[in-house]
Amino acid sequence: MTHTLFITQLADIFAAHQIKTNDAARPYHTDERNRYHLAPLAVVLPHSTAQISRLIKLCAAQNPPVAVIAQGGNTGLVGGCAVLPDCPSILLNLSQLNRVIEIDPLNQTATVDAGVTLQALHDALKPYQLIFPLTLASQNAATIGGNLATNAGGTQVLRYGSMRDLCLGLEVVLADGSVWDGLNTLRKNNTGYDLKHVFIGAEGTLGVITRAVLKLFPAPLHRVCALVACNDLKSILDTFSTIKSKFDQQLTAFEYISANAFDLVCTQFDITPPLEAAPEYALIELASSLPLDNGAFETALDTLLHVNVLQNAAIAHNEQQSAQFWRIRELISAAQKKLGKNIKHDISLPISSINAFCNATYAALQQAYPMIEPTVFGHIGDGNLHFNVSRGGAFADADGLMACEPQINAIVYRFVAQFHGSISAEHGIGLLKRDLLPTVKSDVELRLMRDIKQQFDPQNIMNPHKILP
Amino acid sequence: MTHTLFITQLADIFAAHQIKTNDAARPYHTDERNRYHLAPLAVVLPHSTAQISRLIKLCAAQNPPVAVIAQGGNTGLVGGCAVLPDCPSILLNLSQLNRVIEIDPLNQTATVDAGVTLQALHDALKPYQLIFPLTLASQNAATIGGNLATNAGGTQVLRYGSMRDLCLGLEVVLADGSVWDGLNTLRKNNTGYDLKHVFIGAEGTLGVITRAVLKLFPAPLHRVCALVACNDLKSILDTFSTIKSKFDQQLTAFEYISANAFDLVCTQFDITPPLEAAPEYALIELASSLPLDNGAFETALDTLLHVNVLQNAAIAHNEQQSAQFWRIRELISAAQKKLGKNIKHDISLPISSINAFCNATYAALQQAYPMIEPTVFGHIGDGNLHFNVSRGGAFADADGLMACEPQINAIVYRFVAQFHGSISAEHGIGLLKRDLLPTVKSDVELRLMRDIKQQFDPQNIMNPHKILP
Repeated sequence: MTHTLFITQLADIFAAHQIKTNDAARPYHTDERNRYHLAPLAVVLPHSTAQISRLIKLCAAQNPPVAVIAQGGNTGLVGGCAVLPDCPSILLNLSQLNRVIEIDPLNQTATVDAGVTLQALHDALKPYQLIFPLTLASQNAATIGGNLATNAGGTQVLRYGSMRDLCLGLEVVLADGSVWDGLNTLRKNNTGYDLKHVFIGAEGTLGVITRAVLKLFPAPLHRVCALVACNDLKSILDTFSTIKSKFDQQLTAFEYISANAFDLVCTQFDITPPLEAAPEYALIELASSLPLDNGAFETALDTLLHVNVLQNAAIAHNEQQSAQFWRIRELISAAQKKLGKNIKHDISLPISSINAFCNATYAALQQAYPMIEPTVFGHIGDGNLHFNVSRGGAFADADGLMACEPQINAIVYRFVAQFHGSISAEHGIGLLKRDLLPTVKSDVELRLMRDIKQQFDPQNIMNPHKILP
Repeated sequence: MTHTLFITQLADIFAAHQIKTNDAARPYHTDERNRYHLAPLAVVLPHSTAQISRLIKLCAAQNPPVAVIAQGGNTGLVGGCAVLPDCPSILLNLSQLNRVIEIDPLNQTATVDAGVTLQALHDALKPYQLIFPLTLASQNAATIGGNLATNAGGTQVLRYGSMRDLCLGLEVVLADGSVWDGLNTLRKNNTGYDLKHVFIGAEGTLGVITRAVLKLFPAPLHRVCALVACNDLKSILDTFSTIKSKFDQQLTAFEYISANAFDLVCTQFDITPPLEAAPEYALIELASSLPLDNGAFETALDTLLHVNVLQNAAIAHNEQQSAQFWRIRELISAAQKKLGKNIKHDISLPISSINAFCNATYAALQQAYPMIEPTVFGHIGDGNLHFNVSRGGAFADADGLMACEPQINAIVYRFVAQFHGSISAEHGIGLLKRDLLPTVKSDVELRLMRDIKQQFDPQNIMNPHKILP
């Protein structure tokens, strides 16, 4: 099977500089975690929805059809943009579809192309005293389209919700090349099935998101940040519960950092720890458009110190100190990457089960691999733990660690299931977790999902073989 | 075609007191607005998901199959539960499926049966200092299942979102009688297509929602409420924009009340107006778990008075006064009902287009029907107007008014389309607006909706002929 003619036909749709093949395509087809490397037939960089529509029609018309894999910032962690063997594919990189089309300050909405990076949108909003609240470590590269396709979360979900909650409308190119214009700018619109939710979180398997309408919020003008230390995870959860009840909508982030994660960042990036060593840490942020009651926050922390729930607490006295606290949180993944390949578990649990889950899982891992040192952190206010394992402790090198990946996954996911958690809180399923899906979904749910895939993509050309095995 | 055998077979599933026919069925089959009256074959009141599953299997096995119309509190305004001629139907009233199953204070979730009324859930939460924020005038009767099926909105959407935003998980009985257990209690769970969003807002046309997991929030302990008056709608919108920017997440309601609506309530319910007569009013509520800065609120209103954006403002000094202000807002629909049948338009617009829309629509209506007096009110912070017309002004009686309904609808919906609004912000489509749907949706969108309906309900037995013509 050759695709020479097909590649030639791409030139009818795209200018030469929009088509990358062979060596020029290489930078696009290795994923963030260096797990997937197969080359597509070509990488194309469209400038318009119309080009994407024509491309998909062309791909659908081949015999056999050519697969279309949409790619945003290529920052995904589960191989969502991986090219598969024996599956001739076009990698549709959306980075050139990158205009902020409209900002409506009174309606508090932004309409943007899918290839706009999250950081570019943040920057575009600065003159308006408005924010788009999604915040991710990878936001310089990650795009709005990728954020939507994976229903991205990040550190501000507690206050503002995930990407799904922040989207009002979409434009999507469907598997037959037709375009669905669902660019709704309304806060309320109950006119039949809400199709945008079918595409959000579908990881490009049902259509290609090309444009979106997003909710904006008044920029918080006041912010306070604290780093706290506890003797155990239960105390971290008690602190969350107290602060959440008291400060509710002012609580914009509650990030858990285990001692392993904390120490790893300080060692790898040569940071002097801002608090004495402790078993568990959390980063707490309050923000508001109104002045904050810093006294009330200090009193709340003092009370928690007094009753021994907290062991230590430091409040940032300025933006710079606040940025230092956040830097520790944001460098965890990079610190892990410095140690080489690692095993990530992006899991979520009912908040009321986190402590029991961690105790059970640590014990089982410790029994199987004495001296194992999981590097755990996450958005504990959303019940979302990044339950990761790097080399160190039981594993002298990354190769030795990765050889045990299936066994370590099995232990972690067994307890995730037992405590009614999720095997993917915010990273999605992609290719990496695809074969786990039947172990966590009922037959009824898998059947409904397969039927939706069949309906929206009968030729199976939209990012095929991802999510569903 | 007779259904005698079918009715007999119902007794295999339900106890005698759970089956209502003939006169006993009558209270269930007239809708809130007294527009639809046809009788179903029977009304059944199941106690369990298993009974609903068996019922649907029985209905699907008939030749021809029997339709299943789920009914909550029967408070819908668009004939969503109407029985259709030539369509033998079972009315599945969920009022007996009404247990609050679990409240998890740390996870801040409640798991409830679909037939629990919104008020019953509010009451059940009182001991926990938690709230479920959805608030509707009809909440004594309206059920969680109905709220989900119609993606209900209400007065707190500004701060907490619509029903869709407040739901984490669902249990649904599908059209073949199988049960989808999607009772997710997690804040983040990105494991494939998010099926709950297919059923939420689908008005019972894709399956019967039997149970749900809902998000809870800390009860706001502090609240302040103001009634303000303006000379024009633009000033109302300017007030909204100022208050929203300044108080952001503390702003829990911003309700617009036109002079017609305000006066109608005061006249019909013999209320002394709490403010001097003005052309436009709004009810503003701030709430928080922390003490509010009432001084900042008063200063903000004073500034708006000073620059003549506001003409008048009254701040409630206690819960009783606050309740008086809210009573005016909540009695509008009841005051209209006292005048007899009326024409409702539950529309939404980009907030930045509300003023231009209202000016254009008033002018066109005035030209067609001199002296017409629309009774407009709504959740202006969500862009949601209840653009209603009662008798009075151009119409001496309700019959004369209702005779002009198609023409009045045509004028209003023409401008809704022109200003990129929605013909149903929060009430849904049901039967009443079904035939309008093709005028407001693209062929691509209608095709996707029809395909979803076909996939989930191939026999067309789940509330057939609603939403889609």
